[in-house]
Amino acid sequence: MPKRKVIHREKPKEKFSYDPKKVLSKLEEYGRSVLEAIKSGKNPYFDIPMRGLNNVYFDEKSRLIKMGDKLSRRYFLNVAHARKFMQTLLIMAYVKRLVSEGKHASLREAYYANKHTIPGTRENTFEDQRESDPIIEDLERMLGVLREEMHITADRRGYIYGDIVIRDGEDEFNASKLGSGGWAVPGTVEHIQFPEINVDYALVVETAAMADRLIEEKFPKRENALIIATQGQASRGVRRLIHRLHYEEGLPIIVFTDGDPYGWYIYSTIKQGSINLAYLSDKLATPEARFVGMTMDDVERYGLKNVTEKLKGIPPNKKGGPTGDYKRILEEMEYPWFQNKEWQRQLKMALKWGVRIEQQALANKSLEFVAKEYLPEKINNGDLLP
Amino acid sequence: MPKRKVIHREKPKEKFSYDPKKVLSKLEEYGRSVLEAIKSGKNPYFDIPMRGLNNVYFDEKSRLIKMGDKLSRRYFLNVAHARKFMQTLLIMAYVKRLVSEGKHASLREAYYANKHTIPGTRENTFEDQRESDPIIEDLERMLGVLREEMHITADRRGYIYGDIVIRDGEDEFNASKLGSGGWAVPGTVEHIQFPEINVDYALVVETAAMADRLIEEKFPKRENALIIATQGQASRGVRRLIHRLHYEEGLPIIVFTDGDPYGWYIYSTIKQGSINLAYLSDKLATPEARFVGMTMDDVERYGLKNVTEKLKGIPPNKKGGPTGDYKRILEEMEYPWFQNKEWQRQLKMALKWGVRIEQQALANKSLEFVAKEYLPEKINNGDLLP
Repeated sequence: MPKRKVIHREKPKEKFSYDPKKVLSKLEEYGRSVLEAIKSGKNPYFDIPMRGLNNVYFDEKSRLIKMGDKLSRRYFLNVAHARKFMQTLLIMAYVKRLVSEGKHASLREAYYANKHTIPGTRENTFEDQRESDPIIEDLERMLGVLREEMHITADRRGYIYGDIVIRDGEDEFNASKLGSGGWAVPGTVEHIQFPEINVDYALVVETAAMADRLIEEKFPKRENALIIATQGQASRGVRRLIHRLHYEEGLPIIVFTDGDPYGWYIYSTIKQGSINLAYLSDKLATPEARFVGMTMDDVERYGLKNVTEKLKGIPPNKKGGPTGDYKRILEEMEYPWFQNKEWQRQLKMALKWGVRIEQQALANKSLEFVAKEYLPEKINNGDLLP
Repeated sequence: MPKRKVIHREKPKEKFSYDPKKVLSKLEEYGRSVLEAIKSGKNPYFDIPMRGLNNVYFDEKSRLIKMGDKLSRRYFLNVAHARKFMQTLLIMAYVKRLVSEGKHASLREAYYANKHTIPGTRENTFEDQRESDPIIEDLERMLGVLREEMHITADRRGYIYGDIVIRDGEDEFNASKLGSGGWAVPGTVEHIQFPEINVDYALVVETAAMADRLIEEKFPKRENALIIATQGQASRGVRRLIHRLHYEEGLPIIVFTDGDPYGWYIYSTIKQGSINLAYLSDKLATPEARFVGMTMDDVERYGLKNVTEKLKGIPPNKKGGPTGDYKRILEEMEYPWFQNKEWQRQLKMALKWGVRIEQQALANKSLEFVAKEYLPEKINNGDLLP
């Protein structure tokens, strides 16, 4: 069987697009409109796309969760709006300074940096980070940019390993030459470039222990794959990296998680984004991602029944149910992107058997099994879920 | 003022000591004793140092939590012991295979790999990871080695950035040339070597956001420091790395956490180890570590009252108290290594004021403040807590 029959690098669909000037000019545009309104004696306002479930929808064509067109208008001269208007301007000024100076701040730093008592009053600009975070989200929606593009960084988590060359500022290095550690993915990957990609696809792995197993078994080299360890739910940095590797570099994305509702949710978030961050789907999500495992079929096919675990919670047909894992699975069955035979079948089997299976249960076969049989077999045969 | 008056690299006190043969010969020794007992018709047993609080003590001289000398004898021919005896032998055989083959397994893989139904019975060797984890701990105490030395890896978390050269297998790289990402610390650092160390000390930082702030401000270069980001409680890999950098490479260790009971606990664990893992203190702990902040004194000295937060829970003098942060602080006041004027003073102030202060609150001054004033001032003046 020729290798890589099914999985190979594709033609890029997007270009490297990081351009701080774009954000700056948007900010200036909004700033100018406020200034002009004031000068001409009008009441300045911002139009901000509304958040929440009733302003998002699943776009069948692009297979993305998208933001609707409902706007909320925030006025300066309105007692109910004035505080938020002031906060919006403060954060906009802060972002302008960050981007101009080429500096980054965390959400928390952005809060602390902008918290002060307004001179002549006993009023604080912000009382709590719960006030500043939503303003930053508002700005993302209003300007149509990621907060990373505004130089506000998300929490970082995850690492990568494989034969790609990364350029980050003045540094350039090969992510397969960093020992067993791998490269820690920073909170912001907007500015990262990839001068050389020598892999056929990226395998996104839920647990660090499994990623490390694959590294130890030399899977990346043998299968010509990049390993991306998410270490649980994928951070925004990792999701953006996956998106960029797929759309700018043409790498197929294959996701490998535990066979349980949490693992499938991790896949779902990488693939489609979340409803909370729906307005970012076109930059953070990768609808073309596919899923290699763990599946309920694997349990039968590889004789793993002995190493499954029971689902947590109460099944739907028992008193008080469904709760826990059962409830989660039923919710996932409703996701638009799981409306296909393959996924419905898996999810129904999980409900019926009442079991879940971990990636590491494959160690029951042997340590090598996952790297030398399970993954190559499934991936090279294209035995993947949509 | 000359720089680095107080903080400079010291003479190493320990040597690189990773030697897989040591573990193998210990295992063989135990295996042989079991075999000989069986051959001569005796009842085989293992002597295992007892776990738990009543077999640990704080050794004033070494300033380490140490294990006492109480042993528990585990017999093969004893209905109450037989299952655990069998499990101990299984794991020992597994570790022998791992170390011989130069492979590593996670705790969970070790569980799955050794779970099977005993032929001719309906009995499983292990029912649950809660059965295998304690056996591995028993072996650590019995053999006097870290589980990392037995090639059983801990969860990984944390990254480093700074001018040191790391050798990991065939790879050699400088941890200051990896862009903004830094090197992800693997679960096991036993085999890592440091051909070149060009820094004066290591700064251990609780939050990724603060570590990234310092990297962006070029603190590592300007202050000749290595940054170690723990991302919360330090993983075993990071603690072992800190220990090795201090004892084998002579790097002073300075810890920088939030000014709250959780941050001080992180410091405490790096410094002294935890009671659970007391038997590992001499390999995982670094009693010479010092603490730069955040402290309650910082709140006054740098005028940060406006950006403190209230302690959570009920104070000791209120009904139902102490709970939450208050309770935690009172517990920390009892730790043997906090029995000194400086720490008692800080902890009392926190209780009295009822506040905590985050690292990132320093952003209230300016983004640069922490890197250009706060840390250099405190560190270069030796203004550190013991």
